[in-house]
Amino acid sequence: MKLSVDQTRNLAHAAMRSCGYTDNEAAIIADHLLDCELRGLSFGGLARGLSVAERRLSTPEPAPITITKESPVSANIDGGDQVGYLVARRATELAIAKASSVGLAVVGARRTWYTGMFSYYLEMITKAGLAGIVAGSGLQLVAPHGGTEGRFGTNPIAFGFPSDEQPIIWDIGTSAVMLGEVLLRERLGDLLDEGQAYASDGRPTQDPTEALKGALAVWGGHKGSGLALTVQLLGMMAGASAAPEGLTDCGFFLLVINPDLLTDGTDYRRRVAEYAQNVRKTRPLDPAEPVRVPFDRSAIERSKRLASNRVDVDDRVYRSIAELAGALNLP
Amino acid sequence: MKLSVDQTRNLAHAAMRSCGYTDNEAAIIADHLLDCELRGLSFGGLARGLSVAERRLSTPEPAPITITKESPVSANIDGGDQVGYLVARRATELAIAKASSVGLAVVGARRTWYTGMFSYYLEMITKAGLAGIVAGSGLQLVAPHGGTEGRFGTNPIAFGFPSDEQPIIWDIGTSAVMLGEVLLRERLGDLLDEGQAYASDGRPTQDPTEALKGALAVWGGHKGSGLALTVQLLGMMAGASAAPEGLTDCGFFLLVINPDLLTDGTDYRRRVAEYAQNVRKTRPLDPAEPVRVPFDRSAIERSKRLASNRVDVDDRVYRSIAELAGALNLP
Repeated sequence: MKLSVDQTRNLAHAAMRSCGYTDNEAAIIADHLLDCELRGLSFGGLARGLSVAERRLSTPEPAPITITKESPVSANIDGGDQVGYLVARRATELAIAKASSVGLAVVGARRTWYTGMFSYYLEMITKAGLAGIVAGSGLQLVAPHGGTEGRFGTNPIAFGFPSDEQPIIWDIGTSAVMLGEVLLRERLGDLLDEGQAYASDGRPTQDPTEALKGALAVWGGHKGSGLALTVQLLGMMAGASAAPEGLTDCGFFLLVINPDLLTDGTDYRRRVAEYAQNVRKTRPLDPAEPVRVPFDRSAIERSKRLASNRVDVDDRVYRSIAELAGALNLP
Repeated sequence: MKLSVDQTRNLAHAAMRSCGYTDNEAAIIADHLLDCELRGLSFGGLARGLSVAERRLSTPEPAPITITKESPVSANIDGGDQVGYLVARRATELAIAKASSVGLAVVGARRTWYTGMFSYYLEMITKAGLAGIVAGSGLQLVAPHGGTEGRFGTNPIAFGFPSDEQPIIWDIGTSAVMLGEVLLRERLGDLLDEGQAYASDGRPTQDPTEALKGALAVWGGHKGSGLALTVQLLGMMAGASAAPEGLTDCGFFLLVINPDLLTDGTDYRRRVAEYAQNVRKTRPLDPAEPVRVPFDRSAIERSKRLASNRVDVDDRVYRSIAELAGALNLP
């Protein structure tokens, strides 16, 4: 199904309204889902909207988001089992406000789920001229290096830096394969790559169904395993459980820094842009593949879809979300 | 050469005194060099002391370390071309003091060189019950993923967390091979592993001499390359050059957080220890190789040498450093 940008946003908004979110909440979630579609990450777009609706309609009414601990440089948030798009957005706004005043802020959140792309929050932060670090812990799905049982979530971590040109945002997951990819391969009957997972008895496996009952492998060997552990400890610092049961208590950790604290912020943004250009100009190993800087791919994908005003959505996903939105005849 | 712990420390101290450091400065450097020896990282121990002396004796007198920008949550330091052991120690003490008062602090430093193991500073931080992030930028020695020219330093990054048991300190370099390892293989006439380096014309090479004229490869493919870039941008935020010429303007970036800001610090340290035990108990892939937590190896190596009161030092390194210390007949 081909949709325009507005159609995609409106559809996501209507679907979120239909499952109990307020107009403002639905707008926040829809903006995030749309941004995933624009950046070519369709698993996090309208398809994810269906998972949000399913979870929201099958669980008790969430509590309001509350701040449980606060200082001029910090806040901790109880997400009240609200979806992460709302909780992390609130956390990011708080951190930006505090860092804009004091220069530095840390905000944590717990009791939340589905937070989306961390680069979304880092774009908000870098637009304000600030730099940030975001980390998110979760379910024990991923085995530490040398082990075959889950101890980490898929534990994304991201850093973002403001620039005179586009921001530089590095945003990775610390598992060898994304959970969404495993679910997709299971649905398509495809195998995983070698080394990506363990069965419940500890045998290496390429079967997605066995992997989901066992554990995913960690990315990056022992170095990557340490990074995944680090993310879990940051989530725990935000108050989340080390081993949440089900999709209920993901931890969100956010640090925001005003570069002006250490250097001249205006000059820093200029130097970041200049340095990024210098990295892109690195002599490539393969002349057909110029060196890229983190976020380049996302920026290109988004510009392309915005310019053509076109988002391609899987037909089955379209039908389900339009049905949910009570808009099967639209658009 | 077999030395006792005290002999190793005294030798390092005397060698640093002999090249112009004050008694207190020499004690700070010697403590760091000794800790490298105790942890089995001999390239950073007495051998590194020789490199420090060589640099110190062949360059102009460094300027005093000065704070150029400061706020209740931050400081930026001009290292004055002083060795990093002194500059980073000062930065760490400042960050601990600020974070102990306000809860959160960022400290940067530039114009410095040879900072040693970041885990050394994170042990200071975690002993104070705090958590920390350290990153260090440097010379353009490492090529970004897909490129064959240097754009990053070997760019270490480390995170440390306090615990009721030993701290958890994850400390990695972001190059595919350590610079010290390349120099060692060159001296021994050994080849590098495949994929670790590029010659100056961009060809992949395993020849250490060619690699030193070209570029090292980055660790971790495109994900690792993004992390290395992130470290360079943090160093630049501390005011360091994106492309320092020679061993002169490494950037040091340090963030310290009091877990009490977000959660109960006492409870956090208990949960960190409990979680670390749970990670160690992960069913291993190879029953002979239990899963480890970052810093486990270092802690074991250090305990072993402290218990046996014995440090093994390469005979040539011993002779050179004892000569420098004017102590060839000692110990």
